[in-house]
Amino acid sequence: MRVTRRYRFSASHRLHTPMLSEDENRKLYGKCANPFGHGHDYVLDVTVEGAVDATGQVVERAALDEFVRERILRRVEYKNLNVDLTEFSTMVPTTENLARLVRDLLLDNWNLAPRLAHLRIWETDRNAFDLEVC
Amino acid sequence: MRVTRRYRFSASHRLHTPMLSEDENRKLYGKCANPFGHGHDYVLDVTVEGAVDATGQVVERAALDEFVRERILRRVEYKNLNVDLTEFSTMVPTTENLARLVRDLLLDNWNLAPRLAHLRIWETDRNAFDLEVC
Amino acid sequence: MRVTRRYRFSASHRLHTPMLSEDENRKLYGKCANPFGHGHDYVLDVTVEGAVDATGQVVERAALDEFVRERILRRVEYKNLNVDLTEFSTMVPTTENLARLVRDLLLDNWNLAPRLAHLRIWETDRNAFDLEVC
Amino acid sequence: MRVTRRYRFSASHRLHTPMLSEDENRKLYGKCANPFGHGHDYVLDVTVEGAVDATGQVVERAALDEFVRERILRRVEYKNLNVDLTEFSTMVPTTENLARLVRDLLLDNWNLAPRLAHLRIWETDRNAFDLEVC
Amino acid sequence: MRVTRRYRFSASHRLHTPMLSEDENRKLYGKCANPFGHGHDYVLDVTVEGAVDATGQVVERAALDEFVRERILRRVEYKNLNVDLTEFSTMVPTTENLARLVRDLLLDNWNLAPRLAHLRIWETDRNAFDLEVC
Amino acid sequence: MRVTRRYRFSASHRLHTPMLSEDENRKLYGKCANPFGHGHDYVLDVTVEGAVDATGQVVERAALDEFVRERILRRVEYKNLNVDLTEFSTMVPTTENLARLVRDLLLDNWNLAPRLAHLRIWETDRNAFDLEVC
Repeated sequence: MRVTRRYRFSASHRLHTPMLSEDENRKLYGKCANPFGHGHDYVLDVTVEGAVDATGQVVERAALDEFVRERILRRVEYKNLNVDLTEFSTMVPTTENLARLVRDLLLDNWNLAPRLAHLRIWETDRNAFDLEVC
Repeated sequence: MRVTRRYRFSASHRLHTPMLSEDENRKLYGKCANPFGHGHDYVLDVTVEGAVDATGQVVERAALDEFVRERILRRVEYKNLNVDLTEFSTMVPTTENLARLVRDLLLDNWNLAPRLAHLRIWETDRNAFDLEVC
Repeated sequence: MRVTRRYRFSASHRLHTPMLSEDENRKLYGKCANPFGHGHDYVLDVTVEGAVDATGQVVERAALDEFVRERILRRVEYKNLNVDLTEFSTMVPTTENLARLVRDLLLDNWNLAPRLAHLRIWETDRNAFDLEVC
Repeated sequence: MRVTRRYRFSASHRLHTPMLSEDENRKLYGKCANPFGHGHDYVLDVTVEGAVDATGQVVERAALDEFVRERILRRVEYKNLNVDLTEFSTMVPTTENLARLVRDLLLDNWNLAPRLAHLRIWETDRNAFDLEVC
Repeated sequence: MRVTRRYRFSASHRLHTPMLSEDENRKLYGKCANPFGHGHDYVLDVTVEGAVDATGQVVERAALDEFVRERILRRVEYKNLNVDLTEFSTMVPTTENLARLVRDLLLDNWNLAPRLAHLRIWETDRNAFDLEVC
Repeated sequence: MRVTRRYRFSASHRLHTPMLSEDENRKLYGKCANPFGHGHDYVLDVTVEGAVDATGQVVERAALDEFVRERILRRVEYKNLNVDLTEFSTMVPTTENLARLVRDLLLDNWNLAPRLAHLRIWETDRNAFDLEVC
């Protein structure tokens, strides 16, 4: 069985890469390349997969929440992804890259009984990014 | 092709197991172990899978709705899961266990053309439980 | 200007009055009179009204959240309204009566700068109850 | 990684097949067989799958949007599916058939880097139709 | 206290008036003037206002639902507003006009204890039309 | 009758005033005072009020959309409110102040037939700010 918990965080980002000229950045990322950034209310769906134990649960809610809060939310809530996260000093903070970072941060030191199975990040309610974790 | 129909029902439950002490119940289930229970507006997504027939349908809507209503909804709508469902007299009514019960009740006497493929129950809009039906 | 903050809580209730016979209760409240209760994920919208101060705010978010949490949420979250709230020992816990109780509890000892202007409780996403506070 | 973009369009349709009598149509499709049609605000989720490139993207948003707009949306937005789409002159415009048509129209001349992986159409918020594209 | 109940119905319409030329219709109503119509999943919020009675209710839910169903929903569900409603034979079925028709149909023979206070129709989730009933 | 159109835009902001010390800013605005800002997917509901004309409309949709786009959206979409809007060089970009700015920008040169009646901005889906326009 898979259990998904939904988390929310507000952050800002700017899509821009020094590999490209200003014109090319503008052409590639559109208004998302605006120089001073913009932001979103991101939604993060964390899915774990495992057996239902004798207490009727796949995962202890409090333990999962605490792990996600400690590993992810405290680092991104009300933050500027480009500036506040050192990982994005050399990587464009697209939501694709953010999803991969979230996966790596969760897998690193993962200590919960069920395995991490899937991540989905909604950048807005019109854009979702899915990573199946093998 | 897969077709998903969404149903809703309001019910109450209490998470508590006689296997554990009061303190352990409280530690494990948090406020969900409060003695007199609480409730949710559950969302149930039933997914069937099959071929599209000559009438352009995978499943007759009315037949699926009637089956889900008879097998599931009439038993849980406006009910106390702990008390009103005999299945939960010896099993904690977590949504994991509820999802397994719903699967078993649907598979038992399933008589629709497409197969039952997937179930999702949203306990709240921040918690979802998925069962792939093989 | 009016500012509305949205809160959520899961609780259970049963609609039933000793003034009426079982048949009359059933006729009046329908399945909501089921003997062991059911529950909802209530949404509470608290609206305050006042001037925008020099800090650009009508109300300090943290102060309002703390007040609502202390006065309302800690009493109803994961609770059985009929049993856990003494106010409902002699009053049917319809959402109309719940809205009036929430208003009274908030107005009692209200100590925030803007006035309490409006309350809305969504029982489900198909039912809302509005109280304008004069 | 999979990236999903959400699009919306309002259209009308009538479910009715000349293979069946009026009574049989009414029995099969219910009120959806009403003679003058009805409509929906459809939601179309287009999912592509591919590697994240050096710009941090699986797909250029603008290119995908333009492709979906040109191939699908301009043909169905504010249209009567039965009358305005020649494909439905001999096929019932159920959402199953609409999903297959959308898949065929997208795959035909698909010229984006990532592959088309999945389509979901929500007919209403209680009905979804999923096609995995192999 | 005000109580709002939410109803949904799927219907189709075409915005077009014989007072204007085809070009003027197209200019005024845009794609909504397409000749064969399109549709929406309308949301209707009916608000009543009155005192809370001894049963803890402003209105009996079942009575209000039955009244709205009989007066409104059975006439518009899965219908073509232009063709199926005689009222729109000489009036453009904009949602403004639909809201006024709904108000008139509800007020005519209104027999519930609380008064009809407000109507809101959402044409889509980006468009709402409000009528305060005096 | 009132007609409300809903618009969305993604922007970033930082809540901070030079009138206060860093500690006071942090105490007042919490994490919203983080130095590099964060962002939201704002929702803007613009409500106009007027008579229904012979075409069945209170306002021409295209004219209202164009006005809001030109006056508001092009200035805030994908922007940093603190830096990109000169109005916020000396004013904290709380949503209270943003709502007042939007009102002033819309009223300035308002040239539509119905009057501007109400504005609502949702900062997140848990926070709304309402301005009745007299």
